[in-house]
Amino acid sequence: MSRGVQLDRGDEPPAGGVAATFAGQPLVLDPADLQGVDVAVLGAPFDDGTSHRPGTRYGPSAIRAADDGGRWGRPHMTLGVDPLEELTVVDYGDVAAAPGDLGRSHAALASRLGEVIDAGAMPLVLGGDHSLSLPTLRVLGERHGPDGYAVLHLDTHADTADELYGVRISHGTPFRVAVDEGRLRGANIVQVGLRGTWPGPELFEWMRSEGFRWHTMDEIVERGLTTVVSEAVAAVAAAAPRAYLSVDIDVLDPAFAPGTGTPEPGGLTTRELLWTVRQAARKLDLCAADIVEVCPAYDVADITALAAERTALEILAGMAARRRGEASGPTA
Amino acid sequence: MSRGVQLDRGDEPPAGGVAATFAGQPLVLDPADLQGVDVAVLGAPFDDGTSHRPGTRYGPSAIRAADDGGRWGRPHMTLGVDPLEELTVVDYGDVAAAPGDLGRSHAALASRLGEVIDAGAMPLVLGGDHSLSLPTLRVLGERHGPDGYAVLHLDTHADTADELYGVRISHGTPFRVAVDEGRLRGANIVQVGLRGTWPGPELFEWMRSEGFRWHTMDEIVERGLTTVVSEAVAAVAAAAPRAYLSVDIDVLDPAFAPGTGTPEPGGLTTRELLWTVRQAARKLDLCAADIVEVCPAYDVADITALAAERTALEILAGMAARRRGEASGPTA
Amino acid sequence: MSRGVQLDRGDEPPAGGVAATFAGQPLVLDPADLQGVDVAVLGAPFDDGTSHRPGTRYGPSAIRAADDGGRWGRPHMTLGVDPLEELTVVDYGDVAAAPGDLGRSHAALASRLGEVIDAGAMPLVLGGDHSLSLPTLRVLGERHGPDGYAVLHLDTHADTADELYGVRISHGTPFRVAVDEGRLRGANIVQVGLRGTWPGPELFEWMRSEGFRWHTMDEIVERGLTTVVSEAVAAVAAAAPRAYLSVDIDVLDPAFAPGTGTPEPGGLTTRELLWTVRQAARKLDLCAADIVEVCPAYDVADITALAAERTALEILAGMAARRRGEASGPTA
Amino acid sequence: MSRGVQLDRGDEPPAGGVAATFAGQPLVLDPADLQGVDVAVLGAPFDDGTSHRPGTRYGPSAIRAADDGGRWGRPHMTLGVDPLEELTVVDYGDVAAAPGDLGRSHAALASRLGEVIDAGAMPLVLGGDHSLSLPTLRVLGERHGPDGYAVLHLDTHADTADELYGVRISHGTPFRVAVDEGRLRGANIVQVGLRGTWPGPELFEWMRSEGFRWHTMDEIVERGLTTVVSEAVAAVAAAAPRAYLSVDIDVLDPAFAPGTGTPEPGGLTTRELLWTVRQAARKLDLCAADIVEVCPAYDVADITALAAERTALEILAGMAARRRGEASGPTA
Amino acid sequence: MSRGVQLDRGDEPPAGGVAATFAGQPLVLDPADLQGVDVAVLGAPFDDGTSHRPGTRYGPSAIRAADDGGRWGRPHMTLGVDPLEELTVVDYGDVAAAPGDLGRSHAALASRLGEVIDAGAMPLVLGGDHSLSLPTLRVLGERHGPDGYAVLHLDTHADTADELYGVRISHGTPFRVAVDEGRLRGANIVQVGLRGTWPGPELFEWMRSEGFRWHTMDEIVERGLTTVVSEAVAAVAAAAPRAYLSVDIDVLDPAFAPGTGTPEPGGLTTRELLWTVRQAARKLDLCAADIVEVCPAYDVADITALAAERTALEILAGMAARRRGEASGPTA
Amino acid sequence: MSRGVQLDRGDEPPAGGVAATFAGQPLVLDPADLQGVDVAVLGAPFDDGTSHRPGTRYGPSAIRAADDGGRWGRPHMTLGVDPLEELTVVDYGDVAAAPGDLGRSHAALASRLGEVIDAGAMPLVLGGDHSLSLPTLRVLGERHGPDGYAVLHLDTHADTADELYGVRISHGTPFRVAVDEGRLRGANIVQVGLRGTWPGPELFEWMRSEGFRWHTMDEIVERGLTTVVSEAVAAVAAAAPRAYLSVDIDVLDPAFAPGTGTPEPGGLTTRELLWTVRQAARKLDLCAADIVEVCPAYDVADITALAAERTALEILAGMAARRRGEASGPTA
Repeated sequence: MSRGVQLDRGDEPPAGGVAATFAGQPLVLDPADLQGVDVAVLGAPFDDGTSHRPGTRYGPSAIRAADDGGRWGRPHMTLGVDPLEELTVVDYGDVAAAPGDLGRSHAALASRLGEVIDAGAMPLVLGGDHSLSLPTLRVLGERHGPDGYAVLHLDTHADTADELYGVRISHGTPFRVAVDEGRLRGANIVQVGLRGTWPGPELFEWMRSEGFRWHTMDEIVERGLTTVVSEAVAAVAAAAPRAYLSVDIDVLDPAFAPGTGTPEPGGLTTRELLWTVRQAARKLDLCAADIVEVCPAYDVADITALAAERTALEILAGMAARRRGEASGPTA
Repeated sequence: MSRGVQLDRGDEPPAGGVAATFAGQPLVLDPADLQGVDVAVLGAPFDDGTSHRPGTRYGPSAIRAADDGGRWGRPHMTLGVDPLEELTVVDYGDVAAAPGDLGRSHAALASRLGEVIDAGAMPLVLGGDHSLSLPTLRVLGERHGPDGYAVLHLDTHADTADELYGVRISHGTPFRVAVDEGRLRGANIVQVGLRGTWPGPELFEWMRSEGFRWHTMDEIVERGLTTVVSEAVAAVAAAAPRAYLSVDIDVLDPAFAPGTGTPEPGGLTTRELLWTVRQAARKLDLCAADIVEVCPAYDVADITALAAERTALEILAGMAARRRGEASGPTA
Repeated sequence: MSRGVQLDRGDEPPAGGVAATFAGQPLVLDPADLQGVDVAVLGAPFDDGTSHRPGTRYGPSAIRAADDGGRWGRPHMTLGVDPLEELTVVDYGDVAAAPGDLGRSHAALASRLGEVIDAGAMPLVLGGDHSLSLPTLRVLGERHGPDGYAVLHLDTHADTADELYGVRISHGTPFRVAVDEGRLRGANIVQVGLRGTWPGPELFEWMRSEGFRWHTMDEIVERGLTTVVSEAVAAVAAAAPRAYLSVDIDVLDPAFAPGTGTPEPGGLTTRELLWTVRQAARKLDLCAADIVEVCPAYDVADITALAAERTALEILAGMAARRRGEASGPTA
Repeated sequence: MSRGVQLDRGDEPPAGGVAATFAGQPLVLDPADLQGVDVAVLGAPFDDGTSHRPGTRYGPSAIRAADDGGRWGRPHMTLGVDPLEELTVVDYGDVAAAPGDLGRSHAALASRLGEVIDAGAMPLVLGGDHSLSLPTLRVLGERHGPDGYAVLHLDTHADTADELYGVRISHGTPFRVAVDEGRLRGANIVQVGLRGTWPGPELFEWMRSEGFRWHTMDEIVERGLTTVVSEAVAAVAAAAPRAYLSVDIDVLDPAFAPGTGTPEPGGLTTRELLWTVRQAARKLDLCAADIVEVCPAYDVADITALAAERTALEILAGMAARRRGEASGPTA
Repeated sequence: MSRGVQLDRGDEPPAGGVAATFAGQPLVLDPADLQGVDVAVLGAPFDDGTSHRPGTRYGPSAIRAADDGGRWGRPHMTLGVDPLEELTVVDYGDVAAAPGDLGRSHAALASRLGEVIDAGAMPLVLGGDHSLSLPTLRVLGERHGPDGYAVLHLDTHADTADELYGVRISHGTPFRVAVDEGRLRGANIVQVGLRGTWPGPELFEWMRSEGFRWHTMDEIVERGLTTVVSEAVAAVAAAAPRAYLSVDIDVLDPAFAPGTGTPEPGGLTTRELLWTVRQAARKLDLCAADIVEVCPAYDVADITALAAERTALEILAGMAARRRGEASGPTA
Repeated sequence: MSRGVQLDRGDEPPAGGVAATFAGQPLVLDPADLQGVDVAVLGAPFDDGTSHRPGTRYGPSAIRAADDGGRWGRPHMTLGVDPLEELTVVDYGDVAAAPGDLGRSHAALASRLGEVIDAGAMPLVLGGDHSLSLPTLRVLGERHGPDGYAVLHLDTHADTADELYGVRISHGTPFRVAVDEGRLRGANIVQVGLRGTWPGPELFEWMRSEGFRWHTMDEIVERGLTTVVSEAVAAVAAAAPRAYLSVDIDVLDPAFAPGTGTPEPGGLTTRELLWTVRQAARKLDLCAADIVEVCPAYDVADITALAAERTALEILAGMAARRRGEASGPTA
């Protein structure tokens, strides 16, 4: 492939090779090289929006390093498709973050997101803290209009605070701020995985008044994941022609994702998360996706980064299957 | 609130604030300040009853520090009640443990438990090793008589040894010693979660002869958690007018609770544990509760302490819902 | 027991006692002492076949050290049998590995395996990397012929590569090499737990052409573990008169087994694994078993080693129940 | 003592006691209670000024928790004085940090510093990132004028950047910004411990032009710590009537302080650091002090927090000895 | 060698071999096999005397496992002697500890120590907490009389408390209790390495009145290690005909020994400790030695256990050189 | 710079930027791009020569990631030179290792080393295990002849075994094999830092007979590092016109380098190591250098990788100063 830079030299084991690009895909730094790309993976190495344990700025590099496959692709065992063959995927590098200046980091991300979308590609953002959904929502709202897209949001937390500890732009506020700014319709977002003791009744009241829909873990325990996710995906599909899938890794139980800043017991298993995102990617026309809140300093044996990377691959596999028309049967 | 001492100054993020009281509740050190209190949280920082990995003496401080909520309460997302509003909860500090002298530590705990119960409050003890159930059972037996209360015991281990490595008072013996002392009726205890290779047939024989009932993880796998827990809770409710809920955190699988002294693969998930204690707290009239065997030195990213803290909050939420008559619907 | 060497002096707590033999069983170093033995546990402390994270050479010692029971046996809580009473189990030590020379380590293992099998005992091998299945398959093929045994293989990975990074003898190739060498029939192996993005379509095609059968985690999610495992066990039982059970600990989800070299999210829970091996051991006439790929350097609080040790005990318990004719009821 | 709140109940072991105040000293939250206080310890739980590994927001609580002494004081073994008896020390709590808004956190710190200084007490700040020196220098410059105080700065890094990654207020810039603002005289600061490859020649040139003096680790290796520190302390003493001692824990070698955000090999040992701050505290009239950049997420066995806490105690001991006129001989 | 049991089969790499005896020496369990033995290594796997972080019960097994040498001996590079050739060293196993009953553990240790001494061998005890010095002093006092031996005590802490948190037998009291019991002369003990803020003036006063001598780290910094250690060793040699060397691993700085229960910054380096014990072993006629307070749960990469094991080997090497008359020159 | 590929986009903080090349230098993959290069950094991600704890295959990526400087260079604070300005340094990527086939990995390294040397550049190899010195010595012996170069070898271990556990090519044998093959003159190697109990007298005897010279840590303690290193460097300089500097990171004490496979207490501090390599690089005409045995799985907070990276920079700085004729004075 002539696009971008191929950083390793072939069939090398995971311990070797200088540069960890996402799944060994070519590194593209120039927007001009995005033409014909289907998915541009983009790192957002900042965490200035974090209210509790910081450190997600090291998330993008950890997620990339978690890939342990070869250069031969990432064939999906059940779907019968290899997303790296079916789709043109590039690593678009990391945005230039400014430690201590979240506004500048957001602006840098928004700029790169714009380049990706303008080139007709889907951005797949690796966080970084969840505040990065705000520039994403702004760009999507700008490009597609608030009626032009809906959101499937997998998370422990609703992230709809008005402000957190007096700070407006935070990882606890992106979906609120975007609604307040008119970039997102409350009726166009469906949240899955909520649990714990935040937010409280007032915020839920505001969410209800704006048309938010959400499914708690308690509901999932009671009604079953399959039912709940099917409903959620259908609701997103019905709300708008295209969808933004935002995965906060803390939707997983801390046993599966210790490496995150605000862990909350009682979450999904990775088996459930992988199944969920596959459904979403097959059923929805994704215009953007992200996986956020991987915090390597609290991880053990890289299992959180690994779960995030596999989640990204599963999204791509679902997209590839969708494109393929899901005509072919499984290879395995 | 004029009761006790409010240690932080308000709406601060988790990283700040000098003192970690349980869920940010006021610190009460004087028994006179217990009047009108519903629940007094009490730390038991000793582990001299430990046969394997020690270190649970640091459990109480780790569990308190795991709270990352604000001062505004801990509203339950599904039950539609905030236990910190519905109930008057205080942190009654730690008992004065004597490292190396378990008898003195037990006496100190028994004394504080007596103060709490005499004030009409429920003690919620944070361990510490499971030997702390012995002074608890002694106090309960003394106050309510052995027919006045029953026990729901969630644990990997039956803790009914006659002695462990030649030692009578140990974390492996509390329920045996209490029965032998006439403080607990064997027919009034129901155990859930047993697994592994301990105890052996002789101890099970003794337990059977005393009327103990127990449910193994194998039974849970076969019959389903909902069925088993419902039966267990009903049996406890039928046995006596009030109940003591004792949660050994090692009832969780080691993936969910690595930070404990005698981990045993094949246990509950936190999702299951949270659901179980909620059922118990809603259906039973709790007169005492504890969460024991959190051992921070073996924890990772504090996930075990976190699971224990959330378990405590879920117990309180269940109690609050029970008090509220469960009249109101969910807020979310 | 006069056989071998009893290394500790009795009823000691886990922290004491010089030597960690498997489950406190006697150490046998001389093949002559194997007469009358049912199971000989054998450590394979080498990892030169590892393509990713090395370190499983420390697996055998970690698995042995994970045992925390006493000398009184390991009674199974549900099956009503104690494998250490029902069976004569010895620790046959570690094979003499040659770091950097996998061929010599394999030869040493093959030699010890031969001694065990010749003495009429079942080898239970603690790995070590999965390349150790190659000498095992060679010995089994030699002793029983390729039609004389079948394999139940629990693993994330099919381990059927032709070569890995240019290396023929590797932890990714044992089942391929054994088939190519005529020691194993492809139609006699059933694999359970496959997931991730390896192998690709070509390898699956080869496997299909050789008659391999496999069950992915996706299939388990869809059809249920009970159904899938029952089918798999039945297929193995139908294929040949005796069975080799090979458990790669990475069949577990990384949350349950972080201490392994090629973790893959979305795997089994330990509850599921323990149930699965019990079924296998009760329904099959095991002629060999192993538990491989425990890598202590990546473990946390020894939970992976613990899961492996309990898996070994569960296999023994299933064997003991099978021998007992499963006549007696449960003790608990 | 009637001042403030005594949070534990006496002679308790480290594992017990609800609240970790600094060295068990009373908690004071109301400025009115500062009268007569000599030293007010103040936590600064923010790290928004961090360019590399974040997490020092948890520094203050870790440093407090590292104290393992009793309530009976902290007698210095050599100086023959107990700073907690000689001086009135209180814990003034943590400033109300705003995660994501460094300006507000700085303002909160400045406000509390002003209260302490106005009460005639010395603030001893526990960081938090080194950007906290900027509000400290601003308050000192305001209260004492730029000629009224000098700085002894122990650090790997000069922290004199104009901006870092485009951000003006950062942990790499406080001494530059303060000079630029006219709050600090370059000729009044002496730096000890510089090493590594930052800053470069241009920054050193600016520092030289402003009159900064500094001593690299290379100079310490060559000329000896005693000589260098004696000169540095004398230079600070000669520069102004009072001194601000700022200790960045990364002045220690990473072996002694792994728990910090920008570790640099080749630093001081704790033995050297403790000796150095003792000299400084005995020879200088300290008007402020801080210990910054303790980052618990990267610490091991709390040794970095421990080193920081002991450094604080050694500063207090030196101050106490100075006040005592160093008349008494050593007790030991 | 026909004595005891040789547990591994020869020239095996560290990852292999079932049993970790000390330095691969034969395991002796029967006192009758002690005849002709020079040194009997004895594990003391208990920590019930611990006031702070527990866990040293796992010290003996960690220290044994830290050995990574072969069966061919442990030649000293400078002294020109191999202690395992010059001396007959055996592993006498672990004493039978009773978790929760320190008295019984002490009695078990005293009994084994008596067997060793009666056989004419030197006990080298691996702790376990420092309370084990009490049974050691009792046995030595009984066998040799209080004037018959002196003590060289390397430690951060004086361990001369009357009681600790109300407990008389503790790791903070052995040298006090032994003096009070008349088993040890205060004038016969020399302590090296004291630092930190414990004990206070009263305890030092008592120590002074009893004739204790001690050297603080501050004195070592000022006068040099060589001078101080030479004086200390000479003083011990002058006090009595034989010496007991007690090494608390926390005499090392926490950077070198994070794995201990009461770390204190500012300690020795391992280079200094190895040199110190070598001097002691060459100059003194050792009648007993121990290395205590290794706490694996807080260790990193086993460096503390490693330091302890090498300290033990260095003691043996010094003893061997002393026996050899130090006639031969170095081999290297 | 038009040479190679510049992977990041400028002035980015350490958390950002896709690819970690050494010190941010351009990645060169084609030998043709080596013309005019002074130093080519080369990763050797294999560890099949490891006898104890494996894992150094992840050393090269960890060392690269430890760099936290910007793109503006790495000015040396004392030497007054910036090696990245004075020298043309490129990252030549990792050699294509074959896990499980050390011979092939060695051949790949030899091939790349040849390309570097043929281009007139100096290879700076990042290990990987120390067996990589064998292909290096073979290439040097071939290019320069055994009289054409000498070796300065900083290490705990002599690495002169005939074989290790029966294996000839190992990390314990490179200097022996090279001498036996006639690629290295024993009289041309000087070793610094030896300690521990390996090798034994026989190997030292062989070394002596071949003319090896070595300096133990005991000698360094006695005579001082400055003296010993000066002698060692002078001896190397006198032996041959050019020098190969081989640094095994385990020459550091485990406190400074826990992340290595065969740690040995009593080693150098990083302060001493940095000074030592600087001396070597200034005084010798280096034709090759390497830093080996960094094992990230055992590291804490990356301090070992950091020490290795700074050691590499210090070597480059010394080389730059040597080239500059050391004419300019220090900048700081």
